[in-house]
Amino acid sequence: MNIDTNLLALDNPVFHTYLLAACLMLLKLMLQPWITVYRMMKVRAGFRSPEDARRTPLNPQPVEGQLEPNEYVERSRRMNLNDLESIPGFLAAGLLFVLVGPPLLLAQLLLWTYVAARGAHFVAYATAQIHDVRATLWTFSSLSVIAMVVYTLLRVL
Amino acid sequence: MNIDTNLLALDNPVFHTYLLAACLMLLKLMLQPWITVYRMMKVRAGFRSPEDARRTPLNPQPVEGQLEPNEYVERSRRMNLNDLESIPGFLAAGLLFVLVGPPLLLAQLLLWTYVAARGAHFVAYATAQIHDVRATLWTFSSLSVIAMVVYTLLRVL
Amino acid sequence: MNIDTNLLALDNPVFHTYLLAACLMLLKLMLQPWITVYRMMKVRAGFRSPEDARRTPLNPQPVEGQLEPNEYVERSRRMNLNDLESIPGFLAAGLLFVLVGPPLLLAQLLLWTYVAARGAHFVAYATAQIHDVRATLWTFSSLSVIAMVVYTLLRVL
Repeated sequence: MNIDTNLLALDNPVFHTYLLAACLMLLKLMLQPWITVYRMMKVRAGFRSPEDARRTPLNPQPVEGQLEPNEYVERSRRMNLNDLESIPGFLAAGLLFVLVGPPLLLAQLLLWTYVAARGAHFVAYATAQIHDVRATLWTFSSLSVIAMVVYTLLRVL
Repeated sequence: MNIDTNLLALDNPVFHTYLLAACLMLLKLMLQPWITVYRMMKVRAGFRSPEDARRTPLNPQPVEGQLEPNEYVERSRRMNLNDLESIPGFLAAGLLFVLVGPPLLLAQLLLWTYVAARGAHFVAYATAQIHDVRATLWTFSSLSVIAMVVYTLLRVL
Repeated sequence: MNIDTNLLALDNPVFHTYLLAACLMLLKLMLQPWITVYRMMKVRAGFRSPEDARRTPLNPQPVEGQLEPNEYVERSRRMNLNDLESIPGFLAAGLLFVLVGPPLLLAQLLLWTYVAARGAHFVAYATAQIHDVRATLWTFSSLSVIAMVVYTLLRVL
């Protein structure tokens, strides 16, 4: 029996760490669209499809311009797109990284750096901090994923 | 030997259900861009890159405005973006959910609710139903994924 | 003990092939945003958030129009979006495909066709080749993923 068969069991601390980090990032990924919805409902603007400007229970008093881009709503959409460019890659890279059996300390370092950087990036983006802050945090998250991929690649080659 | 080692085997009914649901959603994810292509070719419009307006075998008679957004094509692109915001998260959340060994009934409920809601959302979006219908179906799909993540998180904490 | 338990071990040549292909595609996915960053910094334009036009160490001399779309930067963003529509689906489909134990030759054919097609698509898109070239390469990559999903589905049904 191959020892690798237990890499995806909860009693593998590397997998346990990954599972925790992945769940937090999945919540982030799934909740950002709710923030977009909340913002659209609050300003009753920033809708995207022509039919969204019709009078319905969710839009009882349609007004002119509801389909125009609205910065308050667009910001949340950009944050969502930024998540899409990063989180699925993190989830996949992290799982493959777990499957090549990295040292626990390295796994904790890379996985938690990613989670912390994305959490801080969310705050920086939502509060419109200067680009340099957002870019620095994004760099930490991107390098964490790239490091996991490179580690995995070196184990495979 | 750890019982967890068989969680990703086809004879685990939870994994079997996931695999079926995941394949259907992967087909949805991969086929939406083909719908965009079909629509672009049909109306010969809604192209995105400057070079797409050149005379080529696929575009034998270029006309003015082929690079302008075209609602018929844009609708399919929005549907694709909506898939990107949801399906990769579903695929990852579902796999992690399988790996913590949930009860079969709960797994079937959440996985099939997601698939049914996304299928109906596709029809509602393609036929431009009012926002309330689309929003309701989207809510079911989003909550299914969030429920899988929360269940996984509770098993891990 | 189920033979399936070793499907995700490095000594399974199908998984080994997948891991290599997946790492290369993850690098592609994670590096495209760096190309966007490089292009934004080079032309000092194509920024997206209002705060990015402020004077900061990364933007020492703000100029008019830095928030307008810039084709050189937008091309890289479109390439990134194209990655998002394809690579997460490939990563998920490939993993599920591995888990149903396909023949090695078929796995090598589909996985490497995808990687080769995406690599060539990157070059074709970056150098603005005519749409027909890009479309042909994209078709090969899309069909590889669809073939993996269909194979998996047939094994599961």
